[in-house]
Amino acid sequence: MATIGSHLQGLSLIGGQRGAAGGARFSGVNPANAQTLQPEYFSASAEELEQALQLAADAAAEFAALEPARRSQLLRTIGEMLEAARGDFETLVPLETGLPKARANGELSRTIGQLRLFADWLDQGDWLDPRIDHADSARSPLPKPDLRSMMRGIGPVAVFGASNFPLAFSVAGGDTVSALAAGCPVIVKAHPAHPASSERAGLAIQAALKQCALPPGCFSLLFDAGTALGSALVRDRRIRAVAFTGSRQGGRALMDIAAARPDPIPVFAEMGSINPVFVLSAACSNRGLKIAQSLHASAVQAVGQFCTNPGLLVIPTGSAGDALIAELTRLFVETPAAPMLTASIAARHDQGVDALSAFAGVNVLVRGENTQGQAGASLLTVSAEDFLRQSELQMEVFGPCSLVVRYDDVAVAIAISHALEGQLTATLMADDEDSSDAQSLLEPLTRIAGRVLMNGVPTGVEPIHAMVHAGPWPAASEARSGSVGTAAIERFCRRVCYQDIPDSMLPPMLREANPLNLARLVDGKRVR
Amino acid sequence: MATIGSHLQGLSLIGGQRGAAGGARFSGVNPANAQTLQPEYFSASAEELEQALQLAADAAAEFAALEPARRSQLLRTIGEMLEAARGDFETLVPLETGLPKARANGELSRTIGQLRLFADWLDQGDWLDPRIDHADSARSPLPKPDLRSMMRGIGPVAVFGASNFPLAFSVAGGDTVSALAAGCPVIVKAHPAHPASSERAGLAIQAALKQCALPPGCFSLLFDAGTALGSALVRDRRIRAVAFTGSRQGGRALMDIAAARPDPIPVFAEMGSINPVFVLSAACSNRGLKIAQSLHASAVQAVGQFCTNPGLLVIPTGSAGDALIAELTRLFVETPAAPMLTASIAARHDQGVDALSAFAGVNVLVRGENTQGQAGASLLTVSAEDFLRQSELQMEVFGPCSLVVRYDDVAVAIAISHALEGQLTATLMADDEDSSDAQSLLEPLTRIAGRVLMNGVPTGVEPIHAMVHAGPWPAASEARSGSVGTAAIERFCRRVCYQDIPDSMLPPMLREANPLNLARLVDGKRVR
Repeated sequence: MATIGSHLQGLSLIGGQRGAAGGARFSGVNPANAQTLQPEYFSASAEELEQALQLAADAAAEFAALEPARRSQLLRTIGEMLEAARGDFETLVPLETGLPKARANGELSRTIGQLRLFADWLDQGDWLDPRIDHADSARSPLPKPDLRSMMRGIGPVAVFGASNFPLAFSVAGGDTVSALAAGCPVIVKAHPAHPASSERAGLAIQAALKQCALPPGCFSLLFDAGTALGSALVRDRRIRAVAFTGSRQGGRALMDIAAARPDPIPVFAEMGSINPVFVLSAACSNRGLKIAQSLHASAVQAVGQFCTNPGLLVIPTGSAGDALIAELTRLFVETPAAPMLTASIAARHDQGVDALSAFAGVNVLVRGENTQGQAGASLLTVSAEDFLRQSELQMEVFGPCSLVVRYDDVAVAIAISHALEGQLTATLMADDEDSSDAQSLLEPLTRIAGRVLMNGVPTGVEPIHAMVHAGPWPAASEARSGSVGTAAIERFCRRVCYQDIPDSMLPPMLREANPLNLARLVDGKRVR
Repeated sequence: MATIGSHLQGLSLIGGQRGAAGGARFSGVNPANAQTLQPEYFSASAEELEQALQLAADAAAEFAALEPARRSQLLRTIGEMLEAARGDFETLVPLETGLPKARANGELSRTIGQLRLFADWLDQGDWLDPRIDHADSARSPLPKPDLRSMMRGIGPVAVFGASNFPLAFSVAGGDTVSALAAGCPVIVKAHPAHPASSERAGLAIQAALKQCALPPGCFSLLFDAGTALGSALVRDRRIRAVAFTGSRQGGRALMDIAAARPDPIPVFAEMGSINPVFVLSAACSNRGLKIAQSLHASAVQAVGQFCTNPGLLVIPTGSAGDALIAELTRLFVETPAAPMLTASIAARHDQGVDALSAFAGVNVLVRGENTQGQAGASLLTVSAEDFLRQSELQMEVFGPCSLVVRYDDVAVAIAISHALEGQLTATLMADDEDSSDAQSLLEPLTRIAGRVLMNGVPTGVEPIHAMVHAGPWPAASEARSGSVGTAAIERFCRRVCYQDIPDSMLPPMLREANPLNLARLVDGKRVR
């Protein structure tokens, strides 16, 4: 057994404290060699869950009412603490996930950049959307009161991180950061596939809260070998919202628990998709081989373990399409097998490829070898007709597997776009000569996807204001924003309104003198 | 039987058409004399539901992609059509609801004002929140793409109107208006307590769509004698969100149906509350009688049939509080019984007063007579101690009934605020000498309520930008905005993102030249 991270203890973080050893044990595993990693991790106890919940509830009011600048300072400090741990993550992430060191480095930089983005956004203040409608005592038949409202955090949030982004969509990822930005204490249920990276990131957040003199109860990190603790977390009345990134099955399970509560709460679940790519005819003829190369690179990057992995390639029939597919086939064949994040993810991938292959009309162009947690790349093909009559072919096979659908007329491509369920992304590969066809596809793709892109690949989700990482069901439980991009904060806010409250008692964001110099909607006009 | 409204036919409106006669029949009833009203109403058939749904689905893409100015024109035209029907509503509303003609007039004006407010807001454009992050081809390690996003309607919305606002929270009320504003076709399930007012308002919307040359499928109005049609509506995959105003039981039933769908959808349910009013000691001493008068007027207005009715009055012990309660008692005793909206609402009110009265420690100060659909005003009282140990005393009794809780120290008032479940409103009655106590209560009240007010009454919900008509569970299913105020639009939108889409193919709101002159977030800065 390899011991990693000497200051890691395998224990939950309960507010500013360590949890105790004693619960059911589990360990990280190096997917490259199936070696069990140290330290061993202990599941949090019911008492520790209760402590974390009560600490979060006790901290909620103070944290929500803080001046946003205090929270932006927290986010920047978390970023600094993560940066200081870069060497640790360079070691831990590859060991636990099989992802290369360069990826660990890049993902850490992305995570830190996201913290800075949200900190800047808190300072900018637009997210508060302060609104003031002045009184009019002369109005008849009744005087008009003074009304002021703004966004405010809803209370403690439970976060379930993803297996495939041990940093950017995990303990200090977009869900945690946007909830903290909104002023909501966070309790993270660690993903068991990368407990050491989780603990290390959790320690950074814990240290940042301490350095910023903020209530330690604003953050807890709970380990569990199974799913019972997470279910209890979502069921607890003190939790006001849930954020999740993972499988449809996992997301739906949490949604069902949340919906069955005496007081239902929202679950913001991002559950992946097949991210269709429509290659239009001129683009296919003009640069089919280049398109094949970029699609292949996107499809097999990180062993295909991206939510935005291009799993469905809609390609014209005819010789140019044939040539594109021949190049794709060559590239998929040449792709070496590589370890997936966990053995069970690799096993599910293998089963998924088998399941897709078994549908009527599906031909296997390349079947990657799947052995001992390693996955090769698979490429399957089916006619548009067979695709359209079997909606099960829209199943996501998480990993390096893409299904090619051939179409002979743009009307068929449009029919495919109409038949698709909700997606995180939809992509058009189009040249100037394709513009009429592209225009016909743009509206139906906008209807099904959170993000529509042209002449790019769907992998690569910029953490920036305009980004949407969500989409209609089943891509997400709620399509309004998603966990990437500054609009993510709004998921954890509600609007509160003050009527005829004396100026001195109002939060500074709503005082007449506008001491924070915010852009506000005053009597229907945006003014600063 | 009285025949009202000669052009009313008792038939559903299916897009631009009339439904057929044939389904189960029901009738409006005049609560003042229990007389059955004409015309008789026919429940929509399953085929008519299917037609309405398919028309809505077919219209959704065009409606969502319209320039917002086309939809603001629609809203203004609906307002004009409603104004033209003012004489009809002056007759219909009092007959069906027992509410006076002046209320019908005032509520119609409010409804028309709300349409204008949303129309102005569409024209102003802030609701789209357009965001542009420009490309940076020189960025390393990877070029940064061009990303642009904005809000867009989510698709057909099912609306269930309230019994107690036959115009402002019904067919052409805040839910319908905000969904149409967002670009979502609407199917309204008419409240059976005011079918004629519903039909008349539906005809106005139908006529406005025709005049504006918009797809008639953007609006349907369905009648049903029971609840099966509404359940089927919420279950249908073409419906993308539900809006509801009514009882907790009704809202929860729709939430459970929506959550159990293969593709769960959001339900925005406003389910009422008891709207606590905290009278602080100096205010009680200085002007207790005036406070009693304003609380009484608010509590019995429209026979207490407001979601924001002050159902819980938290009043100091001692002689000033005694005097306030004596005045309240006098006023409640003198309040004449009046017809409630329906006989079943009156019966539930009567049962509710009985149920509250039966709890340990509850004393009945005034028990209104409840006979034949008429309700008198009831005033009950209980000690803080008994209130705090029986959470069931927080039950809403819809109608003219208030429960007085006595407290002897502000710490007890704060304990009450902490014990309360979510509320639409919470009110402080406070004078200058109370400012420290008021400050202590403001934060806990903000935590439980959508709107906190001082020295006013909670009834009277201004349809204006800063308003919040929602609150934490059980006041609302989702506390983010509510159906009143322009933020209501956001409930029916999702953010869509365009990556590297050529300028000419983008919606005008996102084109580089900003042809609609919107305030946009460009590279993190708000610019026009």
